[in-house]
Parts: sequence; structure tokens; C-alpha cells
Amino acid sequence: MIELADNRYGKSRVRLLRLKRGHDGHDLREWTLEILLQGDFESCFKDGDNSKILPTDTMKNTVYSLARNSSAGNMEEFGKELISFLLDANPQISQAQVSISEKPWEHVVTAGEPQPTTFMQSSAERRITQITRGQGGRFSVVSGVENLILIKTAGSSFEGYIRDPLTTLAPAADRLLGTALRATWKYASADAEFDALRARIRETLLAVFAGHQSKSVQHTLYAMGEGVLNDVAEVEEIELTMPNIHCLLVDLSRFGQDNPNEIFVPTDEPRGYIEARLRRRQDGR
Amino acid sequence: MIELADNRYGKSRVRLLRLKRGHDGHDLREWTLEILLQGDFESCFKDGDNSKILPTDTMKNTVYSLARNSSAGNMEEFGKELISFLLDANPQISQAQVSISEKPWEHVVTAGEPQPTTFMQSSAERRITQITRGQGGRFSVVSGVENLILIKTAGSSFEGYIRDPLTTLAPAADRLLGTALRATWKYASADAEFDALRARIRETLLAVFAGHQSKSVQHTLYAMGEGVLNDVAEVEEIELTMPNIHCLLVDLSRFGQDNPNEIFVPTDEPRGYIEARLRRRQDGR
Amino acid sequence: MIELADNRYGKSRVRLLRLKRGHDGHDLREWTLEILLQGDFESCFKDGDNSKILPTDTMKNTVYSLARNSSAGNMEEFGKELISFLLDANPQISQAQVSISEKPWEHVVTAGEPQPTTFMQSSAERRITQITRGQGGRFSVVSGVENLILIKTAGSSFEGYIRDPLTTLAPAADRLLGTALRATWKYASADAEFDALRARIRETLLAVFAGHQSKSVQHTLYAMGEGVLNDVAEVEEIELTMPNIHCLLVDLSRFGQDNPNEIFVPTDEPRGYIEARLRRRQDGR
Amino acid sequence: MIELADNRYGKSRVRLLRLKRGHDGHDLREWTLEILLQGDFESCFKDGDNSKILPTDTMKNTVYSLARNSSAGNMEEFGKELISFLLDANPQISQAQVSISEKPWEHVVTAGEPQPTTFMQSSAERRITQITRGQGGRFSVVSGVENLILIKTAGSSFEGYIRDPLTTLAPAADRLLGTALRATWKYASADAEFDALRARIRETLLAVFAGHQSKSVQHTLYAMGEGVLNDVAEVEEIELTMPNIHCLLVDLSRFGQDNPNEIFVPTDEPRGYIEARLRRRQDGR
Repeated sequence: MIELADNRYGKSRVRLLRLKRGHDGHDLREWTLEILLQGDFESCFKDGDNSKILPTDTMKNTVYSLARNSSAGNMEEFGKELISFLLDANPQISQAQVSISEKPWEHVVTAGEPQPTTFMQSSAERRITQITRGQGGRFSVVSGVENLILIKTAGSSFEGYIRDPLTTLAPAADRLLGTALRATWKYASADAEFDALRARIRETLLAVFAGHQSKSVQHTLYAMGEGVLNDVAEVEEIELTMPNIHCLLVDLSRFGQDNPNEIFVPTDEPRGYIEARLRRRQDGR
Repeated sequence: MIELADNRYGKSRVRLLRLKRGHDGHDLREWTLEILLQGDFESCFKDGDNSKILPTDTMKNTVYSLARNSSAGNMEEFGKELISFLLDANPQISQAQVSISEKPWEHVVTAGEPQPTTFMQSSAERRITQITRGQGGRFSVVSGVENLILIKTAGSSFEGYIRDPLTTLAPAADRLLGTALRATWKYASADAEFDALRARIRETLLAVFAGHQSKSVQHTLYAMGEGVLNDVAEVEEIELTMPNIHCLLVDLSRFGQDNPNEIFVPTDEPRGYIEARLRRRQDGR
Repeated sequence: MIELADNRYGKSRVRLLRLKRGHDGHDLREWTLEILLQGDFESCFKDGDNSKILPTDTMKNTVYSLARNSSAGNMEEFGKELISFLLDANPQISQAQVSISEKPWEHVVTAGEPQPTTFMQSSAERRITQITRGQGGRFSVVSGVENLILIKTAGSSFEGYIRDPLTTLAPAADRLLGTALRATWKYASADAEFDALRARIRETLLAVFAGHQSKSVQHTLYAMGEGVLNDVAEVEEIELTMPNIHCLLVDLSRFGQDNPNEIFVPTDEPRGYIEARLRRRQDGR
Repeated sequence: MIELADNRYGKSRVRLLRLKRGHDGHDLREWTLEILLQGDFESCFKDGDNSKILPTDTMKNTVYSLARNSSAGNMEEFGKELISFLLDANPQISQAQVSISEKPWEHVVTAGEPQPTTFMQSSAERRITQITRGQGGRFSVVSGVENLILIKTAGSSFEGYIRDPLTTLAPAADRLLGTALRATWKYASADAEFDALRARIRETLLAVFAGHQSKSVQHTLYAMGEGVLNDVAEVEEIELTMPNIHCLLVDLSRFGQDNPNEIFVPTDEPRGYIEARLRRRQDGR
């Protein structure tokens, strides 16, 4: 006999651009949303009975309709509104999850002045959040950044690792350390000052990355996570993913030249991959 | 106090092209591998002690060196070899996971004859596998396909769903159903005829998709998973992800024309998203 | 003083999926179109006078409306229809160009039988065409293929090239030759059997690539173009672009192993780039 | 008889990361280069004679070797050096072209201070240049920006266009105008203050885009090009490509809501496409 072990469905890549027209200038937000629902949908899968199915097209409409009236100032608050609306209207849903990714738009600056109604997409970095709640339950809010592309050109070494017959890597006392950081942190409470906390956490991540005497990607990753947990009491745990984007030193000795760590080939593949999750100790020690 | 809850590290996007030179023609395989290790690496994260760290560069070398001597005929067997090698040589590793994706190369056919030493990349479909084992443990093998892009132009409806004030979707008795299938199945045993089983499972997935009278993506997804579990005893569970790639019927009535399900706009976003996991019942019923 | 030297405008990425419902099964075509117009639009650029501007949104509507009634069996014929419609209705347009790219869809085959209403996207190869005509002028039709990914595992060498102090490449008597072919050919007449000719030209390109004793990418590229011009009188000229997708032989001697051209790293960058255009001699020699 | 009409070859996607270690901090540049050569290579194409062929692998080595000794402070100067080196060493080359794209890296700022050895990839915008020279000839330098993603939320209309039976677009007195600008300008002289000019041109492009009362993309594009030609005497001509990235106003009236230009769906396809080239009048009027 066969059983349906898990299932989820919803709508992904729902794109929303929201413009607020203020007196002193416009405010522009661009979000891409994914909504995923779990619940009692077995009859749909097994019998083709759609009577409990909220169409994914309606989920999309819901995003736009709610956005019009919403006073949410950030992704986290809007995600909470959206989940509450869906759970209230659909008792057959046991759990809803909303993931939002924000493209940063900033006012264009010309002649030193921000232009009130002209914007530039300022970075390939993305702000992300994922909000989850079950019927009658509490919100879980995990926020983060992704594709924050960083490089350290000093203060990074990699030495003292295992050497075996397949080792060809030379130890490096001074190497480049490049990564495309993804960091997500879980808030202890779903009622938080999300924008202020996000700014503080990002600042801490950058400051530790810049200042660390790195002995490995792992070493720096841990210091960054530790820094956030030490500085920001509202964060319960943090997960960091730091691919090691290798910059290979070019061997110029073949051409009679030296290369004192100046000429590199940046490469996209292969890449090292390091991820870890840090949290406050549960036992209070 | 802070603790390291989980961590993994390894090498991703390791690319390998392996050529076997037979009497009757060449055999060509192209794989992209990811190796991820777990173990006792806390001192690396906390203290920058690399003495237990196998460099990811060495993992890459290991892939190429093993591939030279390997007699593995497919990704699954090669993944098992690679994991065994890594676990045997590195007692500090508690678990190793290897994921492999294969790009399909086929012999070019000209004048009706396959050319023995010329190949064409035949599809954007990918064969995938993920093998996992802990020290002293047993292999878990999950294989699959991804990006298998399919469309049904008959036998698909979507009706009888919830209608609420935000509903604008019209019920469809005859619609197009397009998807980019991702299916992964877990083998009951790690000693299986992987190539023959893969071919049989893929054939079943396609046959059910083609023949099904679909009342929703969920309905067809379930039938496909059920078909595999019914036909292939070696499969323990199967997970299917089927984004609904919407093809929108163009409203030509504005131009005085009808459109009897002939002219569509295929769209990439937004898209429906449906995933489910089916398994054999544990209680033997 | 400033002048407008050239200008073009139009609509790109117009996507169309067209289904023909025949007795014996369906026929499915998926095209992405770009329409570009030239003409007397100076007042629009300089004065913001839109009175001669056909909106690009209307161009998109035109594609769908024409597709509904069109009997065109292929991209080339549809492109010609679209251009004639636009030029006839818009005397202010001096020249129109339509570029179309086709994604290949093929019937799914199960149990040896093609399924009449189920399709699979069979390849990342694209069929392309570009049709151009001025008011009162004649059609120019250039068709082609792109992203046809090929590899030769025998019959390819690269030796005898310039050696200078910056040379590190070793001559290779037997190497892999991989490419992502883009070939476009200009038809002598715009009234041609486009489908039959396309099939014959593609077959010739593949047969020459497979059979050639290659001394360089240039050498094989030329032979392929020459083969088409020799075989297909309807082709006036042909342009081929063949990036050299390098497959690097892995140095296994560091591990005490040989590597008789069996283990390679395929790479995406950097890549060689070779392009050439071949034509029939104009002077009849 | 068949002839080789044109041909070019070279190396693309050559990636270079160059670090200058100054007293007050590091300077980091990341470039991707393409080198394309033309010349007397007919014997290579026709006969497989490689004796005049500079391998593309050597071109790559040349980039790295020159970069080590180069004092070029920007892409334009480095491109000129590279071309001179290649033409001097290879008389069989009649013309060389180097295209360079720069990814912007900026110092990370923490606690208000730029970190001297830590960098962030600050934008998806790219600085580009293309330098060309024939043997014994003069340099041509075309520089530019691409993927500069902009949006105007006020001051943009589109009205007064042609209305025909296929028109469905409604005139808009106040719409969003989004684009991914590509602008390239040709310098009158190859000895110019490239960095200062680039900054001034980019500032002008942004200022005109922000301040313009736009009646169409064409109208704004022309004003931007005109602004640059008026302000910067060193620019001979300028080419602008401005896809119209449509933001569709969501129809909320179906849900009993208004939508005073606040809620939009940004879309990637289809998109309008507008390009034009502006130059100083040759006749001096």
C-alpha cells in the first residue's frame, strides 16, 4: 500500500513592485514572493477532488490585493499579514509559509542630491525572509541576506591541514578569501524591529569579516556567527553559507616574472562549500 | 554561550569528463560532483585548527584520481567508491555525501549511422544521484531526473476548486499542463541495477504523465509516483516536484477572433509549485 | 549640432506557443520573437511626438492575432507574413526585421509509440531565423541553429602553431574538440523549402564535423561551411561561430598515474572563439 | 568556388583579478577580457596550416604577464597596451580588438570607515570598453556602461501613438519607466582622461534620466545622448540601448479596490526595445 508522506503546494515567483507616493519623494519596493501551503489535501492527490484547493492563481491575486491596503513597512510584516489572511480564510490549511526576496532600489544621486522619483538597482545582494505559521500557532521569522559578495585581500591564511598522497594545494600564509555570503537568522520573537535589527546584523557580519585574522573559511564563518549572537540578543540562531570562491595565483615564473600576490584568476568552479549553524546553548551554560 | 549546531563542508561544481576508448567506439560521460562531509570539526571553526581538515582541493584531486582507475559504470557506483575512499582515509569524518549530476551525451547520427567518436549533448534533462554513508554504516542511494520538461495538450482539466472574492481564474475543462519534472527515488538497497531501474522508472513516469486524465497537477503527480511504486519493487519512496509552467490562453476576442485552445503565451513567472513524497506504508497494510 | 545617426525599436521576447489539433495527434511549436522597425521616427526622438509610433504592445498583439489565422508551417513563413502585415499597415516604417528562435518539442515515446498529445522539450539546441524586408523590397532570409553542443573524441589535433616566450600550451596530436555551434546561412531566395533545406544543412554540418581530420577549430569550421555550400545550392553564404570549449587533460602523474586521454576537466571559461563567413565567389571563378 | 569572406578568432572570458598593495590600502580590479584578431589566416582555415596562428592559450598568458608589469590605471589603457604588444609581436595580424568588462568592487564600510583590505561587489552594473587598432593605425576607444538598472516613478507618459484594430494599450499620462541602460560612447581621441570622463558622462546620463519629462523611451533616450554630446566635447558619438522593462499596473477593480499607480507587476518578457546612435553633425552645421 502507498501513502502520501508529505506534500506542499503554492505559488512561486510572484513579483510585486510597490510604490508609495510621499510628499518628499517616492518609496519603491520590489519583492518576489513564494507561498507554500500544507494541509489536508489527500483527496486532491488521490481522487482529483479540488474542493479544498485554493488555486495558486488566487494566492497571486491575494498578494496584490493585500499589498494595496497593507501598512506593512517591510517584508517581514507583510509576510505575517499574508499568512494570517490565508490561514483565517482557509481552515483546511494546517500551515503556511511565505518567502520573500527583496531587490534593493535606491534613489539616484546626481550633483550630490538624491532624486526623489528616480531609482537605481543598487546591488545584486538580496534581502530575504521566510515566515511560517500553523493554524493557531505562533509566527516563526527567519530573515537574512544572500549573494553578498565579499573578498578579503589581507588577513587570511590556510595552513596546517591534512597532507596525503593526493594533496597538491600549497599552504598559504597570505591568500585572498572570496565568498558570496548567505546568512539567515531566526528571531526569538516575531514582534521585532526587523529593519533596525537587519541593519545591525549586517553591519556586524561585515565588521567581523573585515577584521578577522582568518585561518580558514570555517574560522571566519564561526566568528561572524558568534559576533551576531553576542551582539544581538533578539537572534536565536544563525546559519551561514560561505562558498569559497577561489582566486588562483597565476604562475608567472614560467615567463621569468614574480607574482607577489597581485595577479589572480578568479574562478566560478569548482568552489569550496562551507555551511554551519550556530545557536545559543539551550542548557543556559 | 554559543554552540555549533550543525556544519558541513566540501567541494561543489567539480566537473569531470571521462572517456572510455572501446573497440567499437568511445563512451563519454560528463558529471558535476559535490562532496559534503560532516564530522568533528569544532576545533577548526572555533580555534582555526586545521589539523583535521581535508582540503576541498584534495577532494577534487581525489575525484580525478579515483575516476582514472574506477570500473564504475554509472554515477551511483562511482559515488559509492568515492565515499568509501574518503571515509576509510579520514576517520575524523562521521558522514560523507556525494551528489552527482550527469549531462547526457549521445552519439551523433548521420546518414542513419551513429558516429563512434562524435557526440551531441542531447537534452537539458539531467540525471542525478545522491549517495550518503556514515562511518561503519550502510549506503543510502537516492537517484532521479531533473529538468525533464513536459507538456500535455489534452487530458488535463482544473475545475471544482474554491471560489472566493479574490478568485479570477476560470475553470478549465481542457487546458495545457506543462512542467519541468524533478523526481527522486530512494532505493531499498544500495546494490541495485541502477541503469536498468532508472530507465524503467523514467519510462513509467512518462507513460503515466501521457496517459493520465488529469484533474490537477497534484492528481497527476500522485498517479506518477504511485505508478513507480507499483511497478518497481526496488523503490522505497519517491519525491516529485512539478512546477506548473503556465501557458496562458490569449484573448483574441478583442480582435474579433476566436481561440479554440490554439494560441498561448508560455510564461516563466509566476508559476504554480507542487511537491509530494509517496512511500510504501510502513505497517504493511 | 547633433544628429540621429541610426535608430531601431520594437518588441523582444514575445513568446508564442501554437497548438494545431490534427486527427492523428497534435502539433506544438514554441517560438520567441523579436520585431525591430526602422523608419522616419526623428520627431519621436527629438520632440516626443508619438503620432508615427506603433506601440510595441501592438506589435505583440499582432503576433498573436496573425498566428491564429496563419497557415505558415514554419518560422520563416510566419516571419514573412508578419513583416508584410507590418509594412503594409505602416507606411512610416522603412524596414522591418523579425527574428525567431524555436525551442524543439517532440512527442514523448513510451512503449515504442509516440504519444499524440504529450511532448518533451528535446534539446537545448535552438532553431533560429531572421527575416528582413524594406518597403517595396525583397525578403532576405537567414536561418540557422545555435547552441548545438558537440564534441569529437578522435580525429582532432592542434600542432605547428607559433611558439614564443609566453607559450605554455603543449602541441596535441590527439585532443578533444568541443564546441557550441552557431551556424547561420543566407538563402539565395526567400521562396525555399525551408524545412527540408534546414534538415539537409544540419545533417551536412554534423557529418563533416564527425568525419573531419581536424588540425584546428578553424580547419574544421571551414570544412563544415564548405560542405554546406558545396551540397546545398540554395545557400548563398554561411557564417559559423565555434567557441572552443576546452577540456583540460588532468595531470595524474602527481599521483603516480598515467592519463591516456581519458580523464578531463571540461571548462566554461576562458574559451577560444572562432568565427568565419564563407560565400560563393562573386566573380564566378 | 568558395571564398573566406571574413574571419576572426581569439580568446573570450579571460578573467583577471589584479591587486595593488598600497600603503593606505589595497586597490582591487576585476576584469573579463576578450581578444579578437583578424589577419591573413586563410591557410589555417583551408589547409590546416597553423604556422601563423598565435594560440588562444598564449593570448590568455599574455594578459596575465602584461598585467603584472603594467602601470595602466584603467581598462582603456590596459587594452591599448595589450593591443600594441600583440600587433608588434605578430605582423600576420592586421587588426586586434580587446573588449573588457569590469565588475565594480568597493571598500566595505563599517562604523563609517572604509576597510582598507576588504571589498564588496557593489552593483550588477558593468563598466565596459572596446579598443581596436590595425597595424600602423590609430586606436579607436569606445567605452560605456551596461546593466545600469533604472526606474522613473514620475515624469513619464506615453500617449498620442497610433491606434489601430490591434491596439489594446491604454494611453498613460503617468507611468513607470524602467530600463537596463547600455550606453557606449566613442572618444574623439584615444588619449583621454578616461576615468574622469566616464564619471562625468555617467553623471550626465543619470541627471537627464532623472529630470526629463518623458513622452516615450525614445524621447528620453535622445535627451540623454544629446546631454552627453553637449556636455562632453571628447565624445564623438554615443549609442544607447534602452529596453523598456514593463511594470504592469494590477487591475484591482475586480476586488473592489482602486490602484492609484501603486501596485505593479514587474515583468521580464516581453519587453520593448529601443536603440539609437547620436553623433555630432559632420558638416559642421
